Amino acid sequence: MDKFINPESVAVIGVSADPHRLGYSVFSNLKDSFSGRFYPVNPKYDRVDGLPCWPDLASLPETPDLAIVIVPAAAAPAVLEECGRKGITRVQIQSAGFSEVGPAGRAIQDRCDEVAARYGLRIWGPNCMGMVNGQTGLVASFMRPDIWRDKLKPGNVSLIVQSGMLAAGFLMQVLSDGYFGLRVACSIGNRAGVTECDLLEYLVDDPLTEAVGLYLESVADVPRFREAVSRLGRPVVLLKGGTSAEGAKAARSHTASLAGNAELAEGFFRQLGLIRAHDFVEMMDLLKALVLWRGRKGGRRIAIITGSGAAGIVASDHLSRQGMTLADLSPATVEALKTVYPPWMGPENPLDLFPALGHSGPITVYQTVFKALLEDPGVDGIFMQTFVDARIVKHARKFMDILQNSSKPVVIWPMGDAAWFKPFRDEVEGLGLPAYPEISRCISALRLMVG
Amino acid sequence: MDKFINPESVAVIGVSADPHRLGYSVFSNLKDSFSGRFYPVNPKYDRVDGLPCWPDLASLPETPDLAIVIVPAAAAPAVLEECGRKGITRVQIQSAGFSEVGPAGRAIQDRCDEVAARYGLRIWGPNCMGMVNGQTGLVASFMRPDIWRDKLKPGNVSLIVQSGMLAAGFLMQVLSDGYFGLRVACSIGNRAGVTECDLLEYLVDDPLTEAVGLYLESVADVPRFREAVSRLGRPVVLLKGGTSAEGAKAARSHTASLAGNAELAEGFFRQLGLIRAHDFVEMMDLLKALVLWRGRKGGRRIAIITGSGAAGIVASDHLSRQGMTLADLSPATVEALKTVYPPWMGPENPLDLFPALGHSGPITVYQTVFKALLEDPGVDGIFMQTFVDARIVKHARKFMDILQNSSKPVVIWPMGDAAWFKPFRDEVEGLGLPAYPEISRCISALRLMVG
Repeated sequence: MDKFINPESVAVIGVSADPHRLGYSVFSNLKDSFSGRFYPVNPKYDRVDGLPCWPDLASLPETPDLAIVIVPAAAAPAVLEECGRKGITRVQIQSAGFSEVGPAGRAIQDRCDEVAARYGLRIWGPNCMGMVNGQTGLVASFMRPDIWRDKLKPGNVSLIVQSGMLAAGFLMQVLSDGYFGLRVACSIGNRAGVTECDLLEYLVDDPLTEAVGLYLESVADVPRFREAVSRLGRPVVLLKGGTSAEGAKAARSHTASLAGNAELAEGFFRQLGLIRAHDFVEMMDLLKALVLWRGRKGGRRIAIITGSGAAGIVASDHLSRQGMTLADLSPATVEALKTVYPPWMGPENPLDLFPALGHSGPITVYQTVFKALLEDPGVDGIFMQTFVDARIVKHARKFMDILQNSSKPVVIWPMGDAAWFKPFRDEVEGLGLPAYPEISRCISALRLMVG
Repeated sequence: MDKFINPESVAVIGVSADPHRLGYSVFSNLKDSFSGRFYPVNPKYDRVDGLPCWPDLASLPETPDLAIVIVPAAAAPAVLEECGRKGITRVQIQSAGFSEVGPAGRAIQDRCDEVAARYGLRIWGPNCMGMVNGQTGLVASFMRPDIWRDKLKPGNVSLIVQSGMLAAGFLMQVLSDGYFGLRVACSIGNRAGVTECDLLEYLVDDPLTEAVGLYLESVADVPRFREAVSRLGRPVVLLKGGTSAEGAKAARSHTASLAGNAELAEGFFRQLGLIRAHDFVEMMDLLKALVLWRGRKGGRRIAIITGSGAAGIVASDHLSRQGMTLADLSPATVEALKTVYPPWMGPENPLDLFPALGHSGPITVYQTVFKALLEDPGVDGIFMQTFVDARIVKHARKFMDILQNSSKPVVIWPMGDAAWFKPFRDEVEGLGLPAYPEISRCISALRLMVG
């Protein structure tokens, strides 16, 4: 598998010089991101964007580690023959039009499988968006080129997505919003050869992966999947498509998956300790929490601090719904908090800091409150609501530096002027504190962090 | 009540010349937004920002329709006496430090109540952020001044929020993000006099209100509330704080509310047909759907159109979970769709448009698909997923103009580069089609729209 993720030489069959075509996007991404030996292939061109283009695989001076195919489905079996004759063993087919579109496509895919078996080829795809390696910067995908230069940042989340376009859209969303850094994103499409099991097994020995996000419509091989997940030993967040009868029916014609018995599947995933997400934003949210919070897991007694009584109440409702409780503050904590509150207001959890902020100023209040809560043995985690504006963005690190490398999980809900959400989030996430623009999303992340 | 919402003359007691103080924010907002006769009051100043400032209420040349009080809680009873002597009957107290902070504050609020009873004063608040009238532009609030000029837009959503800071933060979020236009936002805080019932009764005769959002910790007067909601005859979205035991306990010390028996309350709200939201984003989402979609309600058979098979599958799962079904497309619809799909792909609901877009181009595809679905008697509503980029933002109106004033509800899930979400949303919401950045939020809104 490693040569799929870290090839030293790559051929692309079906490059185009037309910037509107996917064959150009794949070419252009590799040209910009790949530091190894690169062989664009298309008999129509001598050069594309100044790079030499080869008429066929036979003419290449070596056998590349990986061939990427972006020709119409009908032409794929012949291209695979050519790969086989050249001795290529890894082929990633990004084109669509295979078993996902019905009997005619199914027949094409069968012919590809037959060629692959004959030559000992492994097929990644078809009907996929390819692979992006956040650590090396390699973009082996038709995803549009202009996002990569500024937005691809290395990180520790690996994604495996049984889909093509959705993987592209999801990844675009994660990257454009700076949601988390990427180890590797793999779109496995119809899984003609490479499956989620191959990739999970590969990640077992990958020290850079700290959490895995999976979108699956079915599990290709149940015993292997079970084994790989348990050997992985790192958290896996799963979004399962086709959990309803109607979704499962739709999944059959999508990646030709049998989504299978829903209840059976639920029990299986629960047994494996997979973390479930129900939509893509929740998947992003939970993965972010997992890579930001690496501390030990603790209990479920939460301190809530807010700038609004109502925020504390709604947060208490959500805590309670998710099996957590409001922490009883220790006498020492209450004494410490009294030093920053005005005399007419006794500090109580949920803590409304509004009167304290007016009475003692933000630096004193935040530092006193955080110190007391971190030292209180009855507090396992902290939910913080704050109003965002230019001032808090500017001073967030000063107010909250005591929370950096905190031994207790902390999540933050910024509220107010939407223009300040992202700058504020970037500040606090620099301290390792995940922030989400809604109570319910914060509480779901906190639930995961306290274990 | 109308003179609270549309006063012709307003006094503000406790104005400040210090831009960091709330007394300045209230002054500054009124100065910028109020076209009536305005009387800032504070014996410390002759003028504030060039406007004459009055030493006390007794010196005013008239009895203003409304007095806004922004003095420390301890000073409030004396100010109310002064109001009473001047013959003022409407007083909005924005200051905090009353019954929400414990016995000492409770005692102050009792003294205020006693003065109010003696003079026949009505108190709005205390512990509230005041009132913002989106239709007239009047901002009677300490909320920070710099948001109003560009962001306050008139609309048809009225908000009633039993909270101070949260109302401010929530409103800031709605306005800064351009979420919906505002009829009126009322923060009622401790409800010493004016309650949600007074405001709901006021809105009964307000033709500009099309939907109401309520944040409540308790209902002040159950029979009046029931009567007002049923007379209102327009949809009400409720976020109830204190639905859990811990939240209810927190609510007691917040606005001094008895959140009451949770189960009893649930049954009551259901009986009244209130729409429930569980967090603030959901409340915003549902209110937006209600003001954009004014059509008749229909059945629950939904057509899904996407640019990704996986999006269709997850959307089907969410549809199913919310009691909707995938529509069976009529033979006429299937025939119409076949004209834009490539021959190797039969159109099926959920419709993956990706192959069709490549085969027939977006204008033909969108116009053909929308026309067929709108005419299909077996389709009650449409869920659409699309990838966003510069091109679709530019052409959204051309692609989708047939959906303007559609007789069927349509919701749109934009996915991909986050930078294009808001521009895209503004385009499609200009056509009356609500857009949300996640499947689950789209499906909740669609569920509300199909009835």
